[in-house]
Amino acid sequence: MLQSLKAQLGGKVSTSPTDLETHGKDEGYPLRRPPLAVVYAENREDIQHTLAWARETSTPVIPFGAGTSLEGHILPQGACISLDLSRMNRILEVRPEDFLAIVEPGVTREQLNTALKGTGLFFPVDPGANASLGGMAATNASGTTTVRYGGMRQNVLALEVILANGEVLELGRAVRKTSAGYDLKDLFIGSEGTLGVITRLTLKLHPLPQHIHTLRVFFDSLEAAAEAAYQLMGSGLPLARLELVDELGLQAVNRYLGRDYPEKPGLFVEFHSSTREALEAESGSALALMREAGALRVDAARTPEERTLQWEARHQLYWALVAQYPGHQFMITDTAVPISKMPDLVRFAQATLREMDLGGSIVGHVGDGNFHTLIATDEALYPKAETFAAKLVEYTLSLGGTCSGEHGVGLRKKKYLQAEHRGSIPWMQQIKRLFDPQHLLNPGKVV
Amino acid sequence: MLQSLKAQLGGKVSTSPTDLETHGKDEGYPLRRPPLAVVYAENREDIQHTLAWARETSTPVIPFGAGTSLEGHILPQGACISLDLSRMNRILEVRPEDFLAIVEPGVTREQLNTALKGTGLFFPVDPGANASLGGMAATNASGTTTVRYGGMRQNVLALEVILANGEVLELGRAVRKTSAGYDLKDLFIGSEGTLGVITRLTLKLHPLPQHIHTLRVFFDSLEAAAEAAYQLMGSGLPLARLELVDELGLQAVNRYLGRDYPEKPGLFVEFHSSTREALEAESGSALALMREAGALRVDAARTPEERTLQWEARHQLYWALVAQYPGHQFMITDTAVPISKMPDLVRFAQATLREMDLGGSIVGHVGDGNFHTLIATDEALYPKAETFAAKLVEYTLSLGGTCSGEHGVGLRKKKYLQAEHRGSIPWMQQIKRLFDPQHLLNPGKVV
Ligand SMILES: Cc1cc2nc3c(=O)[nH]c(=O)nc-3n(C[C@H](O)[C@H](O)[C@H](O)COP(=O)(O)OP(=O)(O)OC[C@H]3O[C@@H](n4cnc5c(N)ncnc54)[C@H](O)[C@@H]3O)c2cc1C
Ligand SMILES: Cc1cc2nc3c(=O)[nH]c(=O)nc-3n(C[C@H](O)[C@H](O)[C@H](O)COP(=O)(O)OP(=O)(O)OC[C@H]3O[C@@H](n4cnc5c(N)ncnc54)[C@H](O)[C@@H]3O)c2cc1C
Repeated sequence: MLQSLKAQLGGKVSTSPTDLETHGKDEGYPLRRPPLAVVYAENREDIQHTLAWARETSTPVIPFGAGTSLEGHILPQGACISLDLSRMNRILEVRPEDFLAIVEPGVTREQLNTALKGTGLFFPVDPGANASLGGMAATNASGTTTVRYGGMRQNVLALEVILANGEVLELGRAVRKTSAGYDLKDLFIGSEGTLGVITRLTLKLHPLPQHIHTLRVFFDSLEAAAEAAYQLMGSGLPLARLELVDELGLQAVNRYLGRDYPEKPGLFVEFHSSTREALEAESGSALALMREAGALRVDAARTPEERTLQWEARHQLYWALVAQYPGHQFMITDTAVPISKMPDLVRFAQATLREMDLGGSIVGHVGDGNFHTLIATDEALYPKAETFAAKLVEYTLSLGGTCSGEHGVGLRKKKYLQAEHRGSIPWMQQIKRLFDPQHLLNPGKVV
Repeated sequence: MLQSLKAQLGGKVSTSPTDLETHGKDEGYPLRRPPLAVVYAENREDIQHTLAWARETSTPVIPFGAGTSLEGHILPQGACISLDLSRMNRILEVRPEDFLAIVEPGVTREQLNTALKGTGLFFPVDPGANASLGGMAATNASGTTTVRYGGMRQNVLALEVILANGEVLELGRAVRKTSAGYDLKDLFIGSEGTLGVITRLTLKLHPLPQHIHTLRVFFDSLEAAAEAAYQLMGSGLPLARLELVDELGLQAVNRYLGRDYPEKPGLFVEFHSSTREALEAESGSALALMREAGALRVDAARTPEERTLQWEARHQLYWALVAQYPGHQFMITDTAVPISKMPDLVRFAQATLREMDLGGSIVGHVGDGNFHTLIATDEALYPKAETFAAKLVEYTLSLGGTCSGEHGVGLRKKKYLQAEHRGSIPWMQQIKRLFDPQHLLNPGKVV
C-alpha cells in the first residue's frame, strides 16, 4: 500500500525506525505507537498527494509540527501516516511596515524571532518549547507574554489550509480587524490538525519594547504569591509577563542551571514600555503593591543579560524538573479559571497533591488565571496523576473554568471536553464531519 | 397564520404600523420593507416559541437589537418576523473581581457602562451608535478604543445562543484563554443573526484608566495626518485611541455643536495610563513624533470635561453630517487595509471622490488601518455612491484588505464578500446549512 505513496513522493516517505519512533510519541502522553510511515512534505503538492492517497486507501493522516504537544495530539490511533511539516520552514515575507510576517508552518518561533532581528519587531507568543508556528496555531498556543500580547488566536491574522479533500482555502485577512463573513480562521486555530493542514500563516508582529524592567518577587506561600498576582491584574498596570513559580521549581532550576534563586514561591514580573519614565513609574507602582501584599524580597534584573537569565530559568524550569526525575514523564495540567478564583484553585491543587501524596510543582501564567501542575510520573504513578488531573479539572469546571488554557485536548482531555462543553459537542462533531467526512485528519482527537 | 403566534405570545407580538416601520429599515440601506410582525421577546422561551412557530410555518426570523446596523442587516427579504431583543435588557451579573459582566442581549453599551460606575471597570467597545451588546456581538463591532482594547471578538468571553431548532448552546468560557475544543464562540460572533440568536453574553471588563491624556493634532493634508498616524503605530506607544477626522467632518461638528475646532484634517489621540509619569512621558513622545511628522497645531484636553467634549464631537460627527444634509441617507464605507497601505487608500478615496464629483467626509479608526467614507445620498445619488464603494473595495482588496473592518456584510456587501473570500464561501454556506437547514434565521444575509 505504501508503495504507491513512495512512487509519488520518493525519498520524502520514511519508514526508518528512528523516524517512526519519534513520530509516535509526545512529551506528555504515556503511550507510544509508531505510524506506518512519515511523509516529510516540502510543499502544498506533497500534502495534496498524501491526502489523495489517504482518501483512496482510507488511511488517516496526522499533521506533525515539532511534536512538542503533551496530550497525545500526534499519537496514531491505528495504521496512519505522520505528515511532518518541519521541512516547510521558509519565512516567505517579512513586512515590517505592516507589522506582519508570512511563514510556512514548519518555521519555529525561535527561528522567526531570529529572522526578525534588526526589524525592531518580534513575535510574542512563546510556549515553553521551541514549537512550530503551524503546531502553535493548531493548538492555539500561548505563553508568558499572552497577558499583554494575546495568544495565537490574537496573533494569527490569516491562514492557508488544505482540507481533507485537497482543497486549498485562505482564511482571514492580513488586517488588524475584519467583520467580513464567518470567522473560519478561528475555527481552524485550535483544531489540532483535525479539520485541515495549515500550510501558511500570516502573523502579527509587535514593536520590540524599548525599555524593559524585570522583577522577581518572593513570598511566604504560593497562595500569597497568587493573591499578589491577582491584585497586580486589578491595578491596570500594563504587565508584559506575570509568572508564578513555586519553591520546588526554583530548587530544580538552581540545581539544573547552577543558580541561587531563593527557594520560595515567587512571581516573575516584566514591564515593557516605550519610555524610561513610564517604565520606572509602572514598575515602582507594582513594587509598592507587592510589598503591601506581603513580598519578602524583591530582585530586579538590571541588565539585558540578567533578564535573559531570568526568563531562561523560567523557560528551562520544565527541563530542570525532567533532569531531576530521570526516567519519568511529566503530566502537565493547564486548567484556567476566572482570575479571582485562581488563589482558590492553587490552594486546591496544593492540598490535593498533599492528600494524594504526589510530588508536583506549580508554575504558570497567573495573569491569565492559568497555571500548570507538573507531576513526575512513571507507569506505576501515572494512574494516580490522572486521578489528580481529573479532580483538578472537576474543581476547575465548578469554578467556571476550562480544562485547557493552552495545551489543547488531544486524546487525554476528550473526557473533560465533554463535561465542559456538553451540548456543543455534537455540533463540534458535525463540523468535523463537514470538513472531513472520511475522518482522515487526526481522527479520534478533540471530539 | 400570525394568530397561532399571537395565541402563544399575546401582547408581545406587534403589528402596529410604527413597529413594522422601525423594524423594516436601518440607518444606511436605501430600501425599507416592513416585517409581518415584531415579536418583543422577554425571555428564552419567547424566542423558542417564535422559532418553533417559524419552523412550522416556514417563516424566517430576523433578530433585531437596536437597529443601528448599516448594510441592510435587518431588512426583510420576504414575509418574516422581526425578533426584537430590546426587552431582554437585564444586567445579570457584574463580577468586578473577575473583570467580567454577564448581560442579556438587549443591554446597550451605554447602559452597561452606566451600571459599571463605581466598580473601577468599563466595557471598552464603542461603535458610534448606542447599539445593543447582542447586535454588537452579532456584527463583531469595534470602535475608537479597539486599537488598544480590541473589538467584540476579543471582549466577548462566552455566549449563550439559541439555534434555529430551539436548542440552547453555551459557547466559550468565562476565562481569559482556552484551547478546549473548536472555537464556536467566534463562529457566532460576526454571524449577523444567521446562525443563532444570542441570548446572553459574558463580557470582559477593563480597569478604568487612572490617567488619561487627550490630544488633537492638525495637519495640512489628510494624507499627512494618515502618515503621522502610521508612524505613531510604529512607535510602540500604548495608544488608547487614534482617530482621523477630515476638514468636512470638523466643519459639520463646529456647526452642529457650536465648536471652534480648526477646520483642518486632524488626529484625535488618547493615552491611558496607570501612572501620571508614564502618561506624561508617553504623550510627550507622541507629540514630538507628530511635530516631526508635520503637525501644524496641537491642543490638549486638560480636564475631564474637555475630554468628554472632544470625544462627544467625534461620536456626534455622523449626526452632525446628518443634520447638514436633511433628507439624505448616508452610505458609510468601512474598508480596512494592512496599516502601511492606509495613507495610500486615503489618497485613493479622496481622489476618487473628486473624480466622481461626490461629497464625502473621511473619518476613522486609522490605528487599525480602517476608515469610513461618509457620503450623503438620496435616490438620485445612491447609484453613484455605490459605484464609489465598489471602486474603494476593489482597490482595498488589491491591497490585501477587507471589505468590512467593522460594520459587517448584511445585504449590501455580499457581492464583495465573494471577491474577498472566494473558495471559502461555499464552506461558509455549508456552515449556515448545518446550523440552520431551513434557512429561517435572517436568510439571504452574509452568504
Ligand atoms: C516543556 C514544554 C512547555 C510547554 N509550554 C507550553 C506553553 O507555555 N504554552 C502552550 O500553549 N503550550 C506549551 N507546550 C505544548 C506545546 O509546545 C504546544 O502545544 C505547541 O503549540 C505544539 O507545537 P508543535 O509544533 O510541537 O506541534 P505538534 O506537537 O507537532 O502538534 C500539535 C497538534 O497540532 C497539529 N499540527 C501540527 N502542525 C500542524 C499543521 N501545520 N497543520 C495542522 N495541524 C498541525 C498536530 O496534528 C497536533 O494535533 C509545552 C510543551 C513542552 C514540552
Ligand atoms: C452613527 C453610526 C455609527 C456607527 N459606528 C460604528 C462603529 O464605529 N463600529 C461598528 O462596528 N459599527 C458602527 N455602526 C454600526 C452599528 O452600530 C453596529 O453594527 C452595531 O453593532 C449594531 O448593533 P445593533 O444592536 O444596532 O444591531 P442591529 O442593527 O439590530 O442588528 C445587527 C445585526 O445583528 C443581528 N442581531 C442583533 N441582535 C442579535 C442577537 N441578540 N442575536 C443574534 N443576532 C443579532 C441582526 O440580525 C443583524 O443582522 C455605526 C452605526 C451608526 C448608525
